[in-house]
Amino acid sequence: MGLLDYFRNSGRNRGSASVAKERLQILVAHDRAARDRPSYLPKLQQEILAVIRKYVDVDMNAVSVNYEQEDSQEILELNIVLPDAAGRT
Amino acid sequence: MGLLDYFRNSGRNRGSASVAKERLQILVAHDRAARDRPSYLPKLQQEILAVIRKYVDVDMNAVSVNYEQEDSQEILELNIVLPDAAGRT
Repeated sequence: MGLLDYFRNSGRNRGSASVAKERLQILVAHDRAARDRPSYLPKLQQEILAVIRKYVDVDMNAVSVNYEQEDSQEILELNIVLPDAAGRT
Repeated sequence: MGLLDYFRNSGRNRGSASVAKERLQILVAHDRAARDRPSYLPKLQQEILAVIRKYVDVDMNAVSVNYEQEDSQEILELNIVLPDAAGRT
């Protein structure tokens, strides 16, 4: 199963009966050949968030961050619940 | 299976025998409550790439982009093969 299928299914499974929420999920996976170099993912995360805030209001309390490192792979996950479109002008 | 597990497994399945490649995979999934608004994902993609290029050399020929839209969900996928760390100074 491709990663796009995964996302697609996760969207579908929430069902049409659930309240539609604006939601943004960002994943950054870094396969590192050189493990001795310092990771730039935490810094990248800050900058990506800054870029997103140009487009949508992001309440920093509505951002959940998950960072995992295993072997030579790092994964950064950002889950952002956006304010209801109806509430924006 | 969580999304992090998916990434973790995909990393593991490449096996230790394969040549280690620096690789960056970025996924942005947007669940849109208000479908009438124009999408900002293509614009976001450009800006995220610009941010990444601050940290690593990105050959634009080594970037593959996948954009899909279905119902109220948009998914943007960026796959970037980074230059070998050994080749950098």
